[in-house]
Amino acid sequence: MPKKRNKKHFVVIGGGTGTFTVLTALKKYPVKLSAIVSMADDGKSTGVLRDQYGVLPPGDVRRALVALSEDSSLMRKLFEYRFENGDFAGHNVGNLFLSALEKITGNFAEAVEESSKILNIKGKVIPVTLDNVRLYAGLLDGTVIKGETNIDIPKAGKKRAPIEDIWLEPSAKIHEVAREVILDADVIVIGPGDLYTSLIPNFLVRGVCDAILCSDAKKVYICNLMTKFGETDGFGAEQFIYKIEKYAGKNTLDFVLCNARKPSDRVLQEYQKEGSEFVDFSELDRFKAKPKIILENFMQEGSLVRHNPEKLAEVLLKI
Amino acid sequence: MPKKRNKKHFVVIGGGTGTFTVLTALKKYPVKLSAIVSMADDGKSTGVLRDQYGVLPPGDVRRALVALSEDSSLMRKLFEYRFENGDFAGHNVGNLFLSALEKITGNFAEAVEESSKILNIKGKVIPVTLDNVRLYAGLLDGTVIKGETNIDIPKAGKKRAPIEDIWLEPSAKIHEVAREVILDADVIVIGPGDLYTSLIPNFLVRGVCDAILCSDAKKVYICNLMTKFGETDGFGAEQFIYKIEKYAGKNTLDFVLCNARKPSDRVLQEYQKEGSEFVDFSELDRFKAKPKIILENFMQEGSLVRHNPEKLAEVLLKI
Repeated sequence: MPKKRNKKHFVVIGGGTGTFTVLTALKKYPVKLSAIVSMADDGKSTGVLRDQYGVLPPGDVRRALVALSEDSSLMRKLFEYRFENGDFAGHNVGNLFLSALEKITGNFAEAVEESSKILNIKGKVIPVTLDNVRLYAGLLDGTVIKGETNIDIPKAGKKRAPIEDIWLEPSAKIHEVAREVILDADVIVIGPGDLYTSLIPNFLVRGVCDAILCSDAKKVYICNLMTKFGETDGFGAEQFIYKIEKYAGKNTLDFVLCNARKPSDRVLQEYQKEGSEFVDFSELDRFKAKPKIILENFMQEGSLVRHNPEKLAEVLLKI
Repeated sequence: MPKKRNKKHFVVIGGGTGTFTVLTALKKYPVKLSAIVSMADDGKSTGVLRDQYGVLPPGDVRRALVALSEDSSLMRKLFEYRFENGDFAGHNVGNLFLSALEKITGNFAEAVEESSKILNIKGKVIPVTLDNVRLYAGLLDGTVIKGETNIDIPKAGKKRAPIEDIWLEPSAKIHEVAREVILDADVIVIGPGDLYTSLIPNFLVRGVCDAILCSDAKKVYICNLMTKFGETDGFGAEQFIYKIEKYAGKNTLDFVLCNARKPSDRVLQEYQKEGSEFVDFSELDRFKAKPKIILENFMQEGSLVRHNPEKLAEVLLKI
């Protein structure tokens, strides 16, 4: 039976800055919005809170909440406010808020819901799982790395072996609400975001791939603009797609948004210093039927190589 | 010109637990409520925040906000939630919230207002001053003590000389909104609360006594039930009244609510261990006309000697 509704339901799956961009972009349009957020983060403020208070990671949830907030800029600023010095150096108020609410209610999902009310958000932010997990990576040379932060930031300058596999410990099952919104989605948007540390951790949760498979939604992947040192070195767009489908399921993707515009040499040189390179798209013609590649200029002009949110929204809304 | 209004305006002046009790009690009735709160606190969480972040003291404001909140118990619980261990040990979320808002807006009054909205409070909470002050006490033996906490908690067991005088440094002027509500009040309620560390610090702010003097309101003082070690040792009710009028202004008080009910010997023995004694009321007949003494049973039964909020409200509403 076809769904009847007024608004298209977009479900954005991810975690970091890329998810923030897509949510901020889509928020301006008359669509239904849900954000499913990775729960593998363990860095900085989030890591300290997890270690000291045994809470679930608030960082990515916080950013998604702020992206979807329709409230006064003050509440959003407060949630993002980061203490610069003293005992709380590096902590965001929103993280403390979510962690304290979790301690009070004993339930992270309730903490997120309550914060959603306070921030008056459009749509829903949903942790992909409520299980307490850590991310592990196995490198080609046999090394095992524990923790999202350690995988995310290899020691500066030191090359390491490529990532061969990635998994969660202990194993985790999907948060029921995440399952429901995936099944209800009209469009599922994956990324942009760090491949191994923001996107794939979602597919590692038991039940997520099944839900995506069973969903009638169009599945769209927004490919990164630049590679990431220690994570996707030398990756062309086709390799990003292979990896996504390796973990999300073969033939999952219906569309891939891929950027065709190269940044200036000056900007590229800056990125090269951090071991980051422009994502090559010359191999994309090997995808004949599926996924459909939408190769356009998705880049925002500036010294930082970022997706142009308006352009993303424009293309996503046409799907 | 007589004021025309539907609801009586109660302005409660104080700071600590006593103010919380009065506000909680009056909140249930159809009255207009304002709380003017001392800004001399520098203990525990509040002291750390003042020292490390240069903010104004959030503690007493936080408690008054929670007292007046009509919101879900969850938001109130969150504001009062205190981290037990780790980097935030001893800090209330509400304190962090207020301090971060002050840092963002650069304005403590705005931080209080924004928090008032979030907690959906009945009435207003108003810092007595927006100047950054510290409380000083001069003892009879010539010693000068700096800081509300140090005045509040003399070293356990060690007797010290009585307080001779108390003052703020630097000098502070009244917050304009505090002046307005005092002038608008129908009833001004002072206390109950620690005499030197919660109540008198309000009168030390330039402009407060003048505003009280100019106000047509009935002025009521709620006398403490028990003396406090190092602060009001051996005080009878008449001495509490003298000290209040020494700082608030001669003949300020119209009414004094004084408790006539003595706690059980067992309870008194417990308090004696902390150097705290029942406030004697046998000298109150020296007040012939003004203030009018209302000597009744204001005590709540229990192992802690506390004012009965319902009884306080009942008597205050009749004034």
